[in-house]
Amino acid sequence: MDAGVFDQWVQRSLHAFEQALDAWVPADAPAGLGDAMRYAVLGGGKRLRPLLVLAGCDAVQGDAQAALRAACAVELIHAYSLVHDDMPCMDNDVLRRGKPTVHVAYGEAQAMLAGDAMQALAFEVLTPDEGVSPALQARLCALLARASGHAGMAGGQAIDLASVGKCLDEQALRDMHRRKTGVLLQASVLMGAACGQTSPQAWQALSDYGAAIGLAFQVVDDILDVTQDSAVLGKTAGKDQDANKPTYVSVLGLEQAHAYACRLRGQAHEALARSGLASTAWLSVLADKVVDRDN
Amino acid sequence: MDAGVFDQWVQRSLHAFEQALDAWVPADAPAGLGDAMRYAVLGGGKRLRPLLVLAGCDAVQGDAQAALRAACAVELIHAYSLVHDDMPCMDNDVLRRGKPTVHVAYGEAQAMLAGDAMQALAFEVLTPDEGVSPALQARLCALLARASGHAGMAGGQAIDLASVGKCLDEQALRDMHRRKTGVLLQASVLMGAACGQTSPQAWQALSDYGAAIGLAFQVVDDILDVTQDSAVLGKTAGKDQDANKPTYVSVLGLEQAHAYACRLRGQAHEALARSGLASTAWLSVLADKVVDRDN
Repeated sequence: MDAGVFDQWVQRSLHAFEQALDAWVPADAPAGLGDAMRYAVLGGGKRLRPLLVLAGCDAVQGDAQAALRAACAVELIHAYSLVHDDMPCMDNDVLRRGKPTVHVAYGEAQAMLAGDAMQALAFEVLTPDEGVSPALQARLCALLARASGHAGMAGGQAIDLASVGKCLDEQALRDMHRRKTGVLLQASVLMGAACGQTSPQAWQALSDYGAAIGLAFQVVDDILDVTQDSAVLGKTAGKDQDANKPTYVSVLGLEQAHAYACRLRGQAHEALARSGLASTAWLSVLADKVVDRDN
Repeated sequence: MDAGVFDQWVQRSLHAFEQALDAWVPADAPAGLGDAMRYAVLGGGKRLRPLLVLAGCDAVQGDAQAALRAACAVELIHAYSLVHDDMPCMDNDVLRRGKPTVHVAYGEAQAMLAGDAMQALAFEVLTPDEGVSPALQARLCALLARASGHAGMAGGQAIDLASVGKCLDEQALRDMHRRKTGVLLQASVLMGAACGQTSPQAWQALSDYGAAIGLAFQVVDDILDVTQDSAVLGKTAGKDQDANKPTYVSVLGLEQAHAYACRLRGQAHEALARSGLASTAWLSVLADKVVDRDN
């Protein structure tokens, strides 16, 4: 595909996404809470999860308005997890997307509340009074809740906490990353696909695609953590190494980690090929972008 | 009503509730996360919100199984808010329900994650694969998300944070408490009612009932904070006073605060009377219990 065509789709998609997010994250929440929420989620970022939602919806020719809500909800969950993860009792990080982290800018208490309110807002955005069928609302809430809770993201963070200074084998590392990052990326694709009709075969293929790129994303993150500097990443580089956390680089070595990311990209493309879906072009390019990125 | 009849209903209801909660809060969540979640929510408490859900459902002869899920979801939200509220960056409290708070028992990072995972679990419990209609799932998620987020509980906590050391007038105090405590208590009643069919008139009456007891609950909390000791409360007494927070007692005085609680109880009973619903007996007694309690 002509790279320009994909870039135009991204630009168009993110324009709609940022407008929707700006409208749905309240400026008027009381006592500075809205400011902290908006600072946390409107401040940029790769927007990979929203793009996966919208590409997943496009692959099944689904309801674009519902997908826009799903995209905002997923990004709110991702952004809240960063706010809490950056706090002193967790990673104690001061830099995120090139800006002071939320607790540095607004204080720890407000950061915790902003994260809590962002999680609630995600489910509020998914359940409008009208415009999305109740059945789809329920399905989207179910997918998001499972991906972000104990069996998904929060569970992965708990393993991450407990793994500092430990040697994990590759299987344990994969389980941690699958939960911590992979499950929400996978859910992004599936929430997009839920906005249309899919055969069980297509659903399984998209699920496999999501699992492959979810893991690839984390492998590449681990590689970038040691090969890039903080200015390019927009966050503190080398922090996993400094924190003595097991990573794909520490377990596999740099070269093998890179080969693994490429194999996962291959699995993602193979899953799309057997999905039986006609318009998987955006998902296909997104799989490449997950692996070939420098931040 | 014979008090024994009500007590039997409470006993029966809470038995079913505790069993359901025990089954739904995972023991096997990774790396100690499940232990922290269970410690936070299975450790007792008044269970007022679950009882309001179940009484609201009973008032409309609704689906008891759906209401049990709603009861667990509301209690998970309430319990997560206590976990986060007790943390050092918020109220820094070490005692809750007569036990060490979650961050004291499990560390701050695990407490934050447990709270986050409990919020997600609330929405997971509301969206089962089967047993509750998708339309009801969506409605329950909508009610809970709005009550717990920026316009409700989290927003009220942000006002609370910002009000330390300030003089609030009665209207500002009411707005804070309505959001912080009242909206979730009101949502409890309405989530129960959503499990059945209601006329617009009955819905409005239950909403008014919920608003009245929600506020009464906080007024009584403020009274108990200065009149009871920690052993009876199961939490640190006098902490609002120590923290120089505005309360109904500091704004109205003890006697007027008590008179206000009684007026709100009257409003709650009046709302039930005009609901047109036949079986509001449990809601009626619960309004009395909210005001006549010693912890």
